[in-house]
Formats: sequence, structure tokens, C-alpha cells
Amino acid sequence: MSTAPLNGAQALMKTLVDAGIEVCFTNPGTSEMHFVAALDSEPKMRAVLALFEGVATGAADGYARMADKPAATLLHLGCGLGNGLANLHNARKGKVPVVNIVGDHATHHTQYDAQLQSDIETVARNVSPGFVRTSQSTAALCQDAADAITAARGLPGQVATLILPADVSWGEGGVPCPPPPPPSPEAADDATAQAIAQTIAQAMTQAGRAGGKAALLLGGQALREPGLRAAARIAAHSGVKVFAEVFPTRLERGAGLPTVERIAYLAELAGVQLAGIEHLVLVDAKAPVSFFAYPGKKSYLVPDACTVHTLSTPTQDAAASLDKLAQALGAAQAQPALQAPSRPGRPRGKLTAEKVCKAVGHLLPENAIVIDEAITSGLMLAPFTAGAPRHDLITLTGGAIGQGLPNAVGAAIACPERPVLALIGDGTSMYTIQALWTMAREKLNVVSIIFNNASYSVLNVELERVGAEKVGAKARSQLDLNGPVIHFAQLADGMGVHGVRTTTAEEFVLALEHALATPGPHLIEAVVPQSLSGLKRKLLPWLLRSLPNLPPGVARALKRKIAP
Amino acid sequence: MSTAPLNGAQALMKTLVDAGIEVCFTNPGTSEMHFVAALDSEPKMRAVLALFEGVATGAADGYARMADKPAATLLHLGCGLGNGLANLHNARKGKVPVVNIVGDHATHHTQYDAQLQSDIETVARNVSPGFVRTSQSTAALCQDAADAITAARGLPGQVATLILPADVSWGEGGVPCPPPPPPSPEAADDATAQAIAQTIAQAMTQAGRAGGKAALLLGGQALREPGLRAAARIAAHSGVKVFAEVFPTRLERGAGLPTVERIAYLAELAGVQLAGIEHLVLVDAKAPVSFFAYPGKKSYLVPDACTVHTLSTPTQDAAASLDKLAQALGAAQAQPALQAPSRPGRPRGKLTAEKVCKAVGHLLPENAIVIDEAITSGLMLAPFTAGAPRHDLITLTGGAIGQGLPNAVGAAIACPERPVLALIGDGTSMYTIQALWTMAREKLNVVSIIFNNASYSVLNVELERVGAEKVGAKARSQLDLNGPVIHFAQLADGMGVHGVRTTTAEEFVLALEHALATPGPHLIEAVVPQSLSGLKRKLLPWLLRSLPNLPPGVARALKRKIAP
Repeated sequence: MSTAPLNGAQALMKTLVDAGIEVCFTNPGTSEMHFVAALDSEPKMRAVLALFEGVATGAADGYARMADKPAATLLHLGCGLGNGLANLHNARKGKVPVVNIVGDHATHHTQYDAQLQSDIETVARNVSPGFVRTSQSTAALCQDAADAITAARGLPGQVATLILPADVSWGEGGVPCPPPPPPSPEAADDATAQAIAQTIAQAMTQAGRAGGKAALLLGGQALREPGLRAAARIAAHSGVKVFAEVFPTRLERGAGLPTVERIAYLAELAGVQLAGIEHLVLVDAKAPVSFFAYPGKKSYLVPDACTVHTLSTPTQDAAASLDKLAQALGAAQAQPALQAPSRPGRPRGKLTAEKVCKAVGHLLPENAIVIDEAITSGLMLAPFTAGAPRHDLITLTGGAIGQGLPNAVGAAIACPERPVLALIGDGTSMYTIQALWTMAREKLNVVSIIFNNASYSVLNVELERVGAEKVGAKARSQLDLNGPVIHFAQLADGMGVHGVRTTTAEEFVLALEHALATPGPHLIEAVVPQSLSGLKRKLLPWLLRSLPNLPPGVARALKRKIAP
Repeated sequence: MSTAPLNGAQALMKTLVDAGIEVCFTNPGTSEMHFVAALDSEPKMRAVLALFEGVATGAADGYARMADKPAATLLHLGCGLGNGLANLHNARKGKVPVVNIVGDHATHHTQYDAQLQSDIETVARNVSPGFVRTSQSTAALCQDAADAITAARGLPGQVATLILPADVSWGEGGVPCPPPPPPSPEAADDATAQAIAQTIAQAMTQAGRAGGKAALLLGGQALREPGLRAAARIAAHSGVKVFAEVFPTRLERGAGLPTVERIAYLAELAGVQLAGIEHLVLVDAKAPVSFFAYPGKKSYLVPDACTVHTLSTPTQDAAASLDKLAQALGAAQAQPALQAPSRPGRPRGKLTAEKVCKAVGHLLPENAIVIDEAITSGLMLAPFTAGAPRHDLITLTGGAIGQGLPNAVGAAIACPERPVLALIGDGTSMYTIQALWTMAREKLNVVSIIFNNASYSVLNVELERVGAEKVGAKARSQLDLNGPVIHFAQLADGMGVHGVRTTTAEEFVLALEHALATPGPHLIEAVVPQSLSGLKRKLLPWLLRSLPNLPPGVARALKRKIAP
């Protein structure tokens, strides 16, 4: 059997598909035209066009979080990579695998410093510290690609950047590479599990149960069902607390699953959560630090008297490590506590961010994917959906806003049969609003809910937290999205997505019911007051200062009201 | 007289303002809150909020092109800089001064690798190879800022990046720095001017006049009135050709000014322009190279038999150097040929990209600023506006699309009394469409004209130029913005800009007349067929192949029809 000789791009396409990379999120230019032309040589490769690279990279991130395998991106030189950098940063921080393919000028052209010439490798290192390679020849290209795939989907997952010069792409003599072997992570070693089991057992001896003295902190892969169940068995047996990192890459939750308490974004609240813990056991997680630094406040949130233990690192199998720890504690047969089903009632009256979250809890369908980038408006999302049907929660792992809408694109392509709900702040949504167009083009089942409070609301809080005093009108105007207020439903319509603006809870509930019942993308704009406006915003700094000094019961009750 | 002690941000603000930096384009986050708070301490500093960093950086670029001094940007850590990178790249390639202020975590916080932590300096080096500095203390901050300003506005102008850790910003003990001296570039030295004059004189001797044998290639500062006039005197005296670089940073043109022939984007056409030139004299310009590489084609466009001379580099005073050359040639008193006033008639019938350009030429007001990022749709803009009233033309200097709308924001803020017209392709506009909101918020006199041909039209051409054969449906779909077609007038309305969609030349002309007569921002969507669709697109590859072999007269006539 003879086959036509392949150019670099065609061989690369086959290498990707054979390794299971079947989706490419693209925003191509001239230097990527041979890759684009090669799309038709591989029926298994789906190309999804984005109007902006941040959409492509964020979609690749969302896809991999749900598909548990990487997608490829196709970006246009250093500037295209730059445009995609923020969402690649979020992927990096979330340990999410992505294979970036960044087109470059032909190797003989770079010497001329043409208009689009820039140092791509330098930019790439920011998000791909583990793998940046410029392929040097058509013959070497597919091995380079296989190495990039191996790097991306190793544990921890990472962003791997393969730079593809145009002549390497168009050159003849491409040789597809067989698929690289998948990673096979191991559990924590016996000695580590035994030592941690002993520490927990000692804490139990001292206090009867370990509650309040020892805690597991789960991150990354530990927040999927197997890890959560193992941790819940340990908790049921020994009384350890189980925390989740503040911004999980993907958290499986809802009725029938173990619950887990997320570390709070506000360092002051995290301090209350961690107070009294003497042993903190990390499972694919980092010891908690504050998101930003604040004058006169500590960045490292682990109490001084607390010892940090590492059960498993991101290179290990988190669930197997937790199983081993459960075994070592004799907790393997313990009955984990599971979340009972419960839903909030139907909200009524003038719309607020809280009522939007309540409506989502009221209506959340089975097996949904919930993307939370609602910032201050999403404060009540977690409690209102805790007992909703089982769902996945995706959060902003790297703090670079503009992740949510692109993530929704990728998640919907990874899981076409599952409803995707993206809850997004107004300020946040505008970084990558172009994602709506791709939702319309690909007819994705995504409901985007935009909280329109006409403000960078969180910055009003942060302005006071950082101690910036004497705040004047010019400073306030920098946090204010009034004048003009954005009309998100119109923006949606302009990009082919059915958009509706709501100002009452009744309207919102109806719109959400309609959106969930009608295939294709929808956008519901929720016009709401700032969640932290007026009295609440003024009270917050006082509350945060006072929390560490309040009696634990009172602090915890307050915390529940305001924690994300 | 006693004054209150200043924190770092307040002292920085004063240093900026004292050095003439009076506008800051912002997209701040928590780590920039002290800088934001300090805005109210400096009445002279205007802060312009953008919803996306690419708008802020592109606005700073457009501002500096028109104000001839830098603005500052305020960006949020590495991801904010990443989002702004593409338009900083365009500024860098255009030799435009920008002072980036990139907030960072407090110096004591970076060790914890919090969510937003990334290697900012690495990213910055891509666009700020000449100046990246992380300020290490409040005491040193203002000197760092002065050094950044000096670096930015030196010749050539460049992007200087000052990284501002939060604690350096909030620390007490800031000491404003006196304004650094402005640059004082010198003209080419006498020997260089004499030698080039001699070369030109010899070419004149050989050919009677130097036409066709010697040419000046003007770039950067040489394309402003003084440089153009000096070059035109040289041309009038000696018959040299005068070319402009393909994508000028800012070109002064129109009735009453000397004309200049821009090197074509298409290398095939540039080859026709440069054919027969034996001496090419660079004035703040680079020897022409093709924008992209193409299989089997040369990247370097200077003919083999041509000698390249450098009259002045970007570090020198281009106009003074041209004056010196004119003097050396005895051309100082020559009468330069000036563009006669002329306008095309009022277009009629079904709208096309050509008719949009014709309408712009028909109506262009005095002293306008024209921003051309219309890609294929703007092919006829140059001929139709050649005899229009004097105006400035800003083009895409670095090839990173998404420059035009942000540039318009900055240009309108630099020159509030001048009308700004931004002609933008549909694909291009969507990279930084958020600029519309800032236009509305700041009530800027900008008319944005979006050519909606539902296509990345230029890529249809490039696909064939790079020799990508057997193009299938998937590949074509990557260049196609149909399904859904974007409704730009709706997008404008959604962001508070008056938007109108036009499909006939009559509608377009009326809309443009109304927009030019009514203060504030307007968007006119021009629904047009692809300028290079159907027969024309099929003819183009043949034409480009044939051009070098056609008789010069025929080639030139064809070139005029299709050159940008």
C-alpha cells in the first residue's frame, strides 16, 4: 500500500490525532496556513475557530479540565501567543495540559526582523516553563510534537509550547510519530503514608478525634470523586477536617458526593478556617498563601504552630495516595458522609446576585458543568448549589480574569451532552467576550449568566483592604463600569447568541428555565446591585479586622454568610 | 513650606506628570490600588479606563503617535501585560514611546508563588528589550521611573517597562524625580551626507536624472512634514524616487503636502516598485523585506544589483539629515512637487469596500486622523484620499491585528479637536472591540468604520500565496466569519456607541456625514462583499506570478489597481 508523501503539517496532524488530540482551538494567520490546509487531511481533527487567542487558549483549558486530555491551540507568532497568555497562565496554575502550536516565520526569514518577528520563546517561557521548543526541521517535527504531548499530559499537567516555523510546516518529508505512552503516576510511598497516618492517629489520641487539630488540604486531582471519597472516609474515621484549595481546577460536588470546605479567598477568613490546626496534610495542593499581599499582614496563612506534611505531590496519584492513607489508618471501610439532596426555593422580587445564585441552585440540571468566575457576585453560589444534583465546578485557578466564557466553550465541546452554566462578572466577561461568537458558531449548550453590577466590585473591597486611604473621585472611577452601562444581551445578539436582560428574580428564573430547555447558547444578563454595596461594603473591613478576635462560633457563622 | 510625606505611588505620579506624562491608560487590579488611589493627588494626570489591556496599550500607542510624547499604561501583573502585549509589539515596531507600569505582588510575597505570580520580566522583554526594570524600593522608584521615561522617549522611541511591586508603591518615603532631559538627536554627519549626495549625483549624470536608478526610502520620523518636504526637494532636483516604508507609524499626507509612494505589502508588487533601483538610501527605515516568507520566494526585496546606503538611523534626526542631503546636492531651494486637492465623487449603489474608501475620500474633513487597519478592504483608501485635505495616516506597524480601535482612543485623547476615522476589518476589530466602551465613556470624536465581509479575507489570499494546495472545507471554514455573521452596530450600541449598519453607498455616505457632524463616538458598519472575492481572488495569484515579467507600464497600471 502506497501513501502520498506528507508535508510537516500533515504529519503533525496525524501525530496529534493518533495521540488522542482531536480538537484544535485556532486563531491562525499566514504562517499557519499549511497547518490550516492540513486540517482536511485528518477527519478526526476538529478545528474550532476563535476570534481572539484568549478564547482559544481558555477553551483549550476548559476542554482539558473536562476531557482529561489536552487539546491543541493554533496561535499566530509571538503576538498571538501574547493574546493567549492570560488563559494559559490560568491553565498552568491549574495544572491543566495544553499543547500550544505557535506558528512562526520560516527559519530563513527570521533574520530579517519583519513586522511580526518577535522572540516567541521568551514569551512562551512565562506559561510553559517546562516545555518550549522551536522545531528545527520537518523530519524532527513529529518527535517534537510527541515530546510536547508527553510534557503536557505528564503529571502535573502543563502547558507545552511547540513553535512551528512555516517552512518546517510546509516542508516535505514529514513522518508521523507513534503516540507517546500515557503517564502512569504512582501513589505516595508506604513510609510517607504510614508517617502521616501516625501523626493523625496521635492527634486523635490527644483529642479523642482529630477534628480541629489535623486537616487534609486537597487540590488538583484530589478533588475528583475517588480522592474526595477516600478523604471523606479518612474524615469519617478520624475526624480530620477536609479542606479544598481556594480555587479548584475541577471540583466534583453536589448531592451524593462528599462535601469539602474550600479555603476562603479572603486571607482573614482563611485564618479563621485554619486556626488551631496543628497538622496540615497536603494532597496535590500547596500550603495556603494569601492571594495578594496587604500592608502589615502575613502572606503565608498556615498558623505558626502548624506542621505541614505532604502526602502526595502533583507528580503522584492523589486518589491512590489517599486510599493508601485510609488503609494505613484503618479507615478503608469507613462510611463517608455524603451531601444530602436539597435545593433552595424559587427566588422572587428585585434581582440580586444572591437571588441569581439561588435560582441556579433551584434549577441546576443533573450532571451540569458550572463555571464560576462571578467574583463578588458569586459569593452565595457554593451554599445554594451544595445539595443540587451532582455537578462539576470549574474555578479561576490563576487569577487572570477572562477565563470563564472561553472555559465554557471548551467544556461544552469536551462534553456535548452536558449542560454548561458559566456565571461571570461583568468586568470579567469583557476580557474575552468574543467567546460568545464561537458558542454560536459551534451551537454549544452553554448558558452564560452575566452579573451586571456596573463595577469592578471586588476592587472596591481591595482598595480598602490594601489600606489605600483618602480615595477620591478619579480613583473610584477606575473601578466603575457606569457611563455607559454595558448591555450584555445586545452584545450577545450581535454575536449570534440569544440574549436576554433580566431585572427581577421572576424574569431570571423564566429565562434560565427557557435557556436550559432550549439547545444552543444563551446569555442571561442579570442586572444586580453590587453584592458588597453600601452598608455591607463598609462593614466588611471592620468584620475582617475583627474576625480573628471573635468567638469561633460567631466567626464561623459570619464567615458562612460572606465566604465564597 | 511643609508638604505631606508621599508614598511611592504619589511620588511616582508627580514624577510622571512633571516629565509631561499626563495620561495613563489603565486596567488595574488589587496590586495597583495605591497607584489608583494616588491619581487624585495629581490633578494633571488623566486616567482612562479600558476594559481590556490590549485597549490600554494600543491607546497609549495611538496617543504617542499623535502627541509626540509617551503616555503611561497601568497593567496588572504578568497576565495584564500579556493581554497588552500585541499592541505593545505594534508600538515597538513603530518606534513609539510607551511607559508601561506593571503592578506586581509585594516583594515579600513573590516567594509564595500565589495564583497571579508569574515571571513578568520575561514577558516584558519581548516588547521592551531596551528597558525592563523591577523597582526595588520606594526610595529608588522615581529614579527608576525617570530612567524608564528617558528610555521610552529616546530616539528611537521604545516601550519601557517599569515593574512596580505593591509594597514599593505603598511604602512611605517617595521622592519625586526632576524631569529627565528630552532627547536631542543629531543629523547625519557631513561625510555620510556628502557621500550619498555624490552617489545620487553620479546616478543623475548617468541617466540625466536619477529617476529609476536611485531612491530614498523614508520611515519613522522621516514621514512627517519636514522630512517629506526635504525629500521632495531632493526629488525635484535630482529625480530620485521617494518611497515610504510599507506600514508607516504616522504619515502626513493630503493636499498641499508632498506625495510619497508606499512600498507594497505584497512582495511581488514591491519587486516591481524596486526593479531597476541601483541605490537605495535609507532614512529612519529598514531595507524592505517581505512580510511573511513564501516557499521558493526571496524574503529580502532589495534587488541584487542595488546598493543600500544609510543616510540616517532611527537614533538620528531624520528631517535634519534630509535637509543636509538636500544642501549637499544643491537642492535646498528646489520646489517640491505638492499634492493637488482632489476628491472622488459621491459613491452610489450597492456598498463595496471600494465605495466606502471613496466615500471617505469624498467627505474626509480637514485635519483628520485616519487609522487604517482595513486590511484587504482598505486597498483603495490611499488613492481615494491622496488629494483630500491634509491628514495623518496611522497604519499597522507590527502586524498584530487589533491595533486600530485602541489607536483611535489614544489619538482622540491626544488631539481632542481633530476628527478621528478608524477603518477596520471585521476580523481585526474583534481582537480589541472593547475599545468602543472607552470611546463612549470618554465621549471621543471617533468614527469607527467596520468593513463587514464576514471573512478573514487576507488569509484567503495568503492561503494560495503560501502554496497550500487542495484546500478543503475545514480549512476554508477557518477563514470564514459567517455563521453567525457579526452585527457590529449592535455591538456598538451594547457598549454605548451610536451604531448603524449600512448596505448601500447612499446609506453609508449619510451615516458618515451624520457621524462627522455629531460629536462623540460613532460606529458605521459597512456590509460589503469580500474585496478579493470571486474572479479577482482567482486572478490575483496569476497576476502576482506574472507581474515581474510584464512590461513596466502594464505592471505599474495593474499595481495601481491592487496595491495598498
